[in-house]
Amino acid sequence: MEEKQTIPKTQKQEEEENWGSKAWKLLTKVREKAPLIQCITNYVSMDIMANTLLASGASPAMLHSINEISDFTPHVHALCINIGTLSPDWLPSMKSSATLATQLNIPWVLDPVAVSASDFRLKACLQLVGLKPVVIRGNASEILALSTASVGSDKGVDSSQKSTDVVEVAKSLAQASGAVVAVSGAVDIITDGKRVVGVHNGVPMMQRITATGCAVTALIAAFLAADPLRPFEATASALSIFGVAGEIGMDLAKGPASLRMHLIDSLHGLDQKSVFSGVNITSMP
Amino acid sequence: MEEKQTIPKTQKQEEEENWGSKAWKLLTKVREKAPLIQCITNYVSMDIMANTLLASGASPAMLHSINEISDFTPHVHALCINIGTLSPDWLPSMKSSATLATQLNIPWVLDPVAVSASDFRLKACLQLVGLKPVVIRGNASEILALSTASVGSDKGVDSSQKSTDVVEVAKSLAQASGAVVAVSGAVDIITDGKRVVGVHNGVPMMQRITATGCAVTALIAAFLAADPLRPFEATASALSIFGVAGEIGMDLAKGPASLRMHLIDSLHGLDQKSVFSGVNITSMP
Amino acid sequence: MEEKQTIPKTQKQEEEENWGSKAWKLLTKVREKAPLIQCITNYVSMDIMANTLLASGASPAMLHSINEISDFTPHVHALCINIGTLSPDWLPSMKSSATLATQLNIPWVLDPVAVSASDFRLKACLQLVGLKPVVIRGNASEILALSTASVGSDKGVDSSQKSTDVVEVAKSLAQASGAVVAVSGAVDIITDGKRVVGVHNGVPMMQRITATGCAVTALIAAFLAADPLRPFEATASALSIFGVAGEIGMDLAKGPASLRMHLIDSLHGLDQKSVFSGVNITSMP
Repeated sequence: MEEKQTIPKTQKQEEEENWGSKAWKLLTKVREKAPLIQCITNYVSMDIMANTLLASGASPAMLHSINEISDFTPHVHALCINIGTLSPDWLPSMKSSATLATQLNIPWVLDPVAVSASDFRLKACLQLVGLKPVVIRGNASEILALSTASVGSDKGVDSSQKSTDVVEVAKSLAQASGAVVAVSGAVDIITDGKRVVGVHNGVPMMQRITATGCAVTALIAAFLAADPLRPFEATASALSIFGVAGEIGMDLAKGPASLRMHLIDSLHGLDQKSVFSGVNITSMP
Repeated sequence: MEEKQTIPKTQKQEEEENWGSKAWKLLTKVREKAPLIQCITNYVSMDIMANTLLASGASPAMLHSINEISDFTPHVHALCINIGTLSPDWLPSMKSSATLATQLNIPWVLDPVAVSASDFRLKACLQLVGLKPVVIRGNASEILALSTASVGSDKGVDSSQKSTDVVEVAKSLAQASGAVVAVSGAVDIITDGKRVVGVHNGVPMMQRITATGCAVTALIAAFLAADPLRPFEATASALSIFGVAGEIGMDLAKGPASLRMHLIDSLHGLDQKSVFSGVNITSMP
Repeated sequence: MEEKQTIPKTQKQEEEENWGSKAWKLLTKVREKAPLIQCITNYVSMDIMANTLLASGASPAMLHSINEISDFTPHVHALCINIGTLSPDWLPSMKSSATLATQLNIPWVLDPVAVSASDFRLKACLQLVGLKPVVIRGNASEILALSTASVGSDKGVDSSQKSTDVVEVAKSLAQASGAVVAVSGAVDIITDGKRVVGVHNGVPMMQRITATGCAVTALIAAFLAADPLRPFEATASALSIFGVAGEIGMDLAKGPASLRMHLIDSLHGLDQKSVFSGVNITSMP
């Protein structure tokens, strides 16, 4: 013990230990502030998204009617837009709410679910990206498709699927869009176009629960509401906290449905010790 | 023990003991009759609402298309209308179904979710209130907003937030609308404009589960179907039964997601003893 | 033991033992192939349907916009159409997707939820049946109503409610439509118009969980994707596997909400031994 204390910590070690402290501060702020988070999202995700926000201490509001945006959006602390079950009648609300949020400096997050499933979806996403989301979070193929369409690429999508390539693609998208870009995966990649960190939390079975990706995007919105000026830190912290809750939940889970339950319970009950020991965020080369 | 038996019960004590018996009779009737409950409700609540109705013994039907109202609504035993994710294309169905229900003496309940979030929502609610719901259930701020808009008020909303004021506001709304009004909170207030009771059941963590308010409104509809002529008793009983299920569920819960599960399980399994010992409804001054 | 081995198995016994093997092979194929299943379904069922598909190893996609059908449907391995919360704006997508699937030999399943609730719904279903679903799955009253409307009947619906009559009605619908017809109930009936089997799996409490019927229809779609040329075997196997998962889940359940969780967990974890000992499918006279 004593010997260990004499070994000086490197700057990198200290930074990485700091992430636990940052994430805990942000979670605490969400719990104290109970920010109001508007979600214009897909039907499949609404239940788990609302319950994730409530378990984190935030207050969800699923309002999507075009008639209400101008009255309601100005009062929210952050906005989450998710195109999972997009249809033409929902798109004007998404655009209107996003425009208003950007005008009013309300942070908002875009989840480009299955962006390459159709031309309609890709065009909608590109329009939304143009409305200046503060964060974009997707899986590798979504970010690749969005980046290729936004930024252009010499390479086909398939050739870009190495994780090192995803990092470069994410950086390009971040630079072109001005958004922090998060790529979910075994290791989540977060970049603001310059800095890159990897989040090494979560368990593989979370992918067997529908809409966990959507839920963590909403959690990013809650963390943005807690610290609107530092979206990079908020995004990495939210992804890590959700992953830590999943890891603790996994200890009790017998399958994906019980994992879902224990994950939400764990998120609600997370204490400082679990966050400090669990958060695993590292700088990426 | 013997000494206690010699102390005569006051009328108030006997009334309060009676509530357990009333609630149990209504729950039993729901289980026996399996009433068909139409829900025109928000997307977030559909799963927990349907599962709450099924656990109580009722039969849920989520039909909302304007093309079906005239064929279907006449066959239901009660109707639940909830404006949580309201959009202009759903409002005509809500109005049509409510109108038909009132014409046919089918009891219906209104849940004015987030009524003050927009002018669109407030106007829609006032129109629905005009179609004569048998019960209106909301939280304190929803009932305050709806009452202020319906009845008018000299006081601003903020000055009305004491719980004693909520009682008077709820009574005014009940008198003006002809509906039983229920205000959810740490103590639920139920009034028909003259009588007022408080329901002292439930646990705070239920507020950390999305759509529990929506679910209990649907349960009120099921209890109305069991005893359409006594909406005051049905409303107080449904709120109390749901709260008792939450209390029993809380014994096993480790967080909001497991509470949700145990609450539904408990509702399904509630026996006479738990209802008699759990139901806690008192007259309010 | 030795004596038992000397008793020769009848052909019927061997066939019934074979069902365990068939069902296991199909489940294994779903897990290996991870087929993409498009669901155009009702709002209530989306969460449990997506989670059922994920637990089985399949990959769900809830896309319903008319703008996306031509881009997306050609890439899916099977399609599930469910009219639970039907409205006029969703019907064109259902028809377009069904038409395309049939043209491209992509198997698709129809779930005619509450088909007799309105004329609108019945007409929509008849149109969909005309677009050649590979499988139709409903409860007895839904299949009776659909068959009566499709095939015609001298008898009123009420007089047809004996289970032996349901078998004949299902056979008629299968012959008239060209689809495999599955009738859920205490014993599920599956017929292709000639062969008839009964699935003796599942537990009654599954009916107290919303959308389990919808979920098993989606599972049929996943099994069809695994073996598109044998829809009769795929349908019986999917119904049996879901029922076995329910039986295993029931051992741990304390009510409908915990049964839902344990059912999904069990489906995810099903091993060969449980499938071989659990699957109970018999030929019907």
